[in-house]
Amino acid sequence: MECLPGYDVLYFGDTARTPYGSKSPSTVIKYAIENTEFLLSKGAQAVVLACNTASSVAPDILRRRYDIPFFEVISPAAEMAVQSSPKGRIGIIGTRATVASGVYEAVIKKLRPEYRVFASACPLLVPLVEEGWLNRPETAMIVKKYLRPLKSKQIDTLILGCTHYPLLADLIQAKIGRRVRVIDSSKGAANKLRNLIEQDADFQKCLNREGRYRFFVSDTTPQFESIARSILKRPIQLETYAS
Amino acid sequence: MECLPGYDVLYFGDTARTPYGSKSPSTVIKYAIENTEFLLSKGAQAVVLACNTASSVAPDILRRRYDIPFFEVISPAAEMAVQSSPKGRIGIIGTRATVASGVYEAVIKKLRPEYRVFASACPLLVPLVEEGWLNRPETAMIVKKYLRPLKSKQIDTLILGCTHYPLLADLIQAKIGRRVRVIDSSKGAANKLRNLIEQDADFQKCLNREGRYRFFVSDTTPQFESIARSILKRPIQLETYAS
Repeated sequence: MECLPGYDVLYFGDTARTPYGSKSPSTVIKYAIENTEFLLSKGAQAVVLACNTASSVAPDILRRRYDIPFFEVISPAAEMAVQSSPKGRIGIIGTRATVASGVYEAVIKKLRPEYRVFASACPLLVPLVEEGWLNRPETAMIVKKYLRPLKSKQIDTLILGCTHYPLLADLIQAKIGRRVRVIDSSKGAANKLRNLIEQDADFQKCLNREGRYRFFVSDTTPQFESIARSILKRPIQLETYAS
Repeated sequence: MECLPGYDVLYFGDTARTPYGSKSPSTVIKYAIENTEFLLSKGAQAVVLACNTASSVAPDILRRRYDIPFFEVISPAAEMAVQSSPKGRIGIIGTRATVASGVYEAVIKKLRPEYRVFASACPLLVPLVEEGWLNRPETAMIVKKYLRPLKSKQIDTLILGCTHYPLLADLIQAKIGRRVRVIDSSKGAANKLRNLIEQDADFQKCLNREGRYRFFVSDTTPQFESIARSILKRPIQLETYAS
């Protein structure tokens, strides 16, 4: 919405089946296909997989199945990390599924085979963010514990490999140390989409620009509505689609 | 398995869509119906809703739809709590959905209208248990924080209103204080099922007693397999059924 003002946005949050980070690849792929079918049925012309777990296992399969552009959040973050890492020592934090996929390591090694990559799964951070425990001492202790192995490897760059983690960015920066550059994996994907739109006139023409935003979720709870409002800083109307 | 040795058991864990405790009632009911259909297709003659969240919203609807006995975990725990509470001050901890349903309060007030009931939602305990963080200082801090409002109400009995919490029973007992009786909500349901079997000869006759156990899950991860083995203390073979 910030990066491409005026373009229509269809959002689907699979709130009924969240979190994805503890699921197996085959289940995440199955859900990613179902979610794509839903967005296509609502008229989507391009899809951003705004979830590191889905981005880590589903893009190749989705691209083979559907003839629209798919954007994932991993390659852009890996590219930004590689450019900002003078020592070539990059850390990654993510869900269990994202870390197990090894996809960040693969993308970084392809760009810079000599770089060292260290990953740490942080499965409790998503529930802590969902609870809104952003400034609690318990959260600080847990973040510190998760970052310890990366700190001991003397990384100079840290990728926040999960869409929830930017909400903990200040805490993570404090615990990993001020000299480590922290990379948010979400912004790169939006920029890539903007680049495609700017470079491809035919693609641009097929996109709606009525500034219409629709937010679909597969389950509605008061907790989710309040978190969505605090992140988007605007009143939103949620529509329910049972996945 | 301990309470009714020899009887066949079909287990279905909806691991793909877990946790239920943060979902809305309508989604939990929809999933409970789908899960029941699956168990019926495998030959179930009675169903135990071994989940407080599902027990708090789904039993009435399931009983209207299906002509087999359903057992939930809430009434038996409420009955045990009422019998063990000399002061009539009962605390309940559970997921957000279970606490929001108010079902424990309703059942206890029906048994003893003069009793006082205090509930505290503990949404982070399920993720902590799933991570196996049973003896960590962070878990102790979080449990203490969740129990503080109940402690200040001087409860004499505490219901563990979620199937995950008995794994934290020692920690919870230590934090709530030795004089508070802690009630595990799971054992009562198994006892109720045994009572029905012992009292109803026709029902007993329709049950298989080949000692056959089948464990179905909707998603398999190495994490789940290791937790299941540590709880059941036996090697198990998981079968996958995509819900």
